[in-house]
Amino acid sequence: MGKVLVLYYSGSGNTGKVADFVAEGAAEVPATKVTVKSVSEVSAADVLWCDGIALGAPTHMGSIPWQMKRFWDVEMQPHWGKIDGKIGCAFATQGGWGGGAELNCQALMTVMMIYGFLVFGVTDYVAQQFTLHYGTTIAGEPRSEREMDSPRRLGRRLSEWVATYVEGRREEHPLVNGRTRFPWSLD
Amino acid sequence: MGKVLVLYYSGSGNTGKVADFVAEGAAEVPATKVTVKSVSEVSAADVLWCDGIALGAPTHMGSIPWQMKRFWDVEMQPHWGKIDGKIGCAFATQGGWGGGAELNCQALMTVMMIYGFLVFGVTDYVAQQFTLHYGTTIAGEPRSEREMDSPRRLGRRLSEWVATYVEGRREEHPLVNGRTRFPWSLD
Amino acid sequence: MGKVLVLYYSGSGNTGKVADFVAEGAAEVPATKVTVKSVSEVSAADVLWCDGIALGAPTHMGSIPWQMKRFWDVEMQPHWGKIDGKIGCAFATQGGWGGGAELNCQALMTVMMIYGFLVFGVTDYVAQQFTLHYGTTIAGEPRSEREMDSPRRLGRRLSEWVATYVEGRREEHPLVNGRTRFPWSLD
Amino acid sequence: MGKVLVLYYSGSGNTGKVADFVAEGAAEVPATKVTVKSVSEVSAADVLWCDGIALGAPTHMGSIPWQMKRFWDVEMQPHWGKIDGKIGCAFATQGGWGGGAELNCQALMTVMMIYGFLVFGVTDYVAQQFTLHYGTTIAGEPRSEREMDSPRRLGRRLSEWVATYVEGRREEHPLVNGRTRFPWSLD
Repeated sequence: MGKVLVLYYSGSGNTGKVADFVAEGAAEVPATKVTVKSVSEVSAADVLWCDGIALGAPTHMGSIPWQMKRFWDVEMQPHWGKIDGKIGCAFATQGGWGGGAELNCQALMTVMMIYGFLVFGVTDYVAQQFTLHYGTTIAGEPRSEREMDSPRRLGRRLSEWVATYVEGRREEHPLVNGRTRFPWSLD
Repeated sequence: MGKVLVLYYSGSGNTGKVADFVAEGAAEVPATKVTVKSVSEVSAADVLWCDGIALGAPTHMGSIPWQMKRFWDVEMQPHWGKIDGKIGCAFATQGGWGGGAELNCQALMTVMMIYGFLVFGVTDYVAQQFTLHYGTTIAGEPRSEREMDSPRRLGRRLSEWVATYVEGRREEHPLVNGRTRFPWSLD
Repeated sequence: MGKVLVLYYSGSGNTGKVADFVAEGAAEVPATKVTVKSVSEVSAADVLWCDGIALGAPTHMGSIPWQMKRFWDVEMQPHWGKIDGKIGCAFATQGGWGGGAELNCQALMTVMMIYGFLVFGVTDYVAQQFTLHYGTTIAGEPRSEREMDSPRRLGRRLSEWVATYVEGRREEHPLVNGRTRFPWSLD
Repeated sequence: MGKVLVLYYSGSGNTGKVADFVAEGAAEVPATKVTVKSVSEVSAADVLWCDGIALGAPTHMGSIPWQMKRFWDVEMQPHWGKIDGKIGCAFATQGGWGGGAELNCQALMTVMMIYGFLVFGVTDYVAQQFTLHYGTTIAGEPRSEREMDSPRRLGRRLSEWVATYVEGRREEHPLVNGRTRFPWSLD
């Protein structure tokens, strides 16, 4: 079984909703166990348990909220250098488009990289003019179809990489597993 | 007169349209001379001329297109270290939301910083859930009101900082000049 | 008088030492008042007071320590949108070269940008192979001459921009004030 | 056999030397085929061939030199969306410490991420106060032991991840393969 952790901080509740969609997508891949935890519920043991992690937060002042940062600065610090090789990706909400969610995803991935994780974005589009190249970014509450599909796709891709690389199930590689990657022809 | 250069690269034409809106906004501030040039028309003399610059490009592979980068790597290189203190900001188009335009703006500002420029984003919102905290970001062609207002606001803010700091006209400071910064009450 | 705030968080004491060198450099520019505060001493009133700020922190997990981030997330939040136009720069320590101090400076500048600050790096070299293009970066404790000169230069440049742009003393512009910018000929 | 490509651009020759050390380290892992190419020699076929790539360049104006960017913008563009899942890392030279090499590595990884690659840094230190958390960064020519060990470690880690995840040889995982990761005790 691939083990996926969706770890988030949410102030208003919006990022919590996005986290649930990430988890939904992660569960689409067979033989994957998915756990969702907020940063107030999580412990280092949850991170140690997982093969892959989707890390999410609202964009506070262009970057990671202090509540999420504290977890990685303090709780995870004793494990630094000992948990290399997990697979990670990011999701972020923001007050409006252009509000820094991509920069926040980049910061979240930077934190994961220093723990030795391999991080990724998603080439796929989930609708015209809607993608998640550096992680899922949402403005406000996820309401439209595309705002729900983006986090689902992120979670699904995470489970696909975990299945392919950690579990060795090559048939789950996104280039061969046959799942739709673009809602329209690129040609 | 404040001197503002809007410098852009455009492949499809979308970024060129955004550049025109930036120039429109820049011209809203009295006593400001605005020049718009594509990277194929520009010379180092145009950059030397200006007090402030808005630098824009489509997001190619998550960052600055090589055509724009070449200008700063090659044409501007002899002037490095000699043009410090100009004021700069960025704008970027992308194939879809989440497509890297914020990262592209960040990269464009990184280039300006190494030339000693002071760079800025805009705190204002131009519509609900639409802002330009790290520069204007647009998905595809600018069509809706908010997609035209974002680059206008960017250009206007650039002219305001040039007027305030380079020209010494303190009455143009965004906190005192009386122009609308938010389309609705923040309270 | 130009008003400069050096605001830092320090765990081991190294960043506190760097902060003192930044303050030393900031005081080199005539008619500048310099205040140094750690994040546990500072209040929003200090930030409101200043014209320019040098923001510094150790690099914790590739980014801003939660203690510093909390100040900007919580204490400063009520002032967001009301303090635009200050001038900012960053400094960071790290466990070793390649340890993320540039990324940390970038994150610190991102926070300042969302508050509407104009941020800058320094084109100058302070020694051969030692610069501060995106802010001062130091590995461990600042001990060598170049590790003390880098933060001094950062502080001095901050005071120069404050004098030039906020105070309107054009003779303090780094391109004309006659202070040494490179310890050797670039030609 | 794991297939590793070391792809670089070099102006002065320094980055080319670093590339050779990366290749040396990559070859330390058994059953790994390593190819080194400059951007003027490489073709899309080389990228398609590899399982993992180390991408390197000098830091030009804080980011990727246009010559390297053009390759990914133009030559690789037809393959976008079709080569997901490769493993990538970055290395960069710079004129001096603080000169932007970390930001350049970040930009290089951003390019790789948009092609669907999983990117990583290295938790290990190669000497006291010398690490490669976001890729190898060197100031000028690599001369000292630690400046040669950093790129070697980067290449070795790349081959280890390729062996572990692409080839399925779990005994090559850095946490279990027994190779030295720190030159001194962390405790």
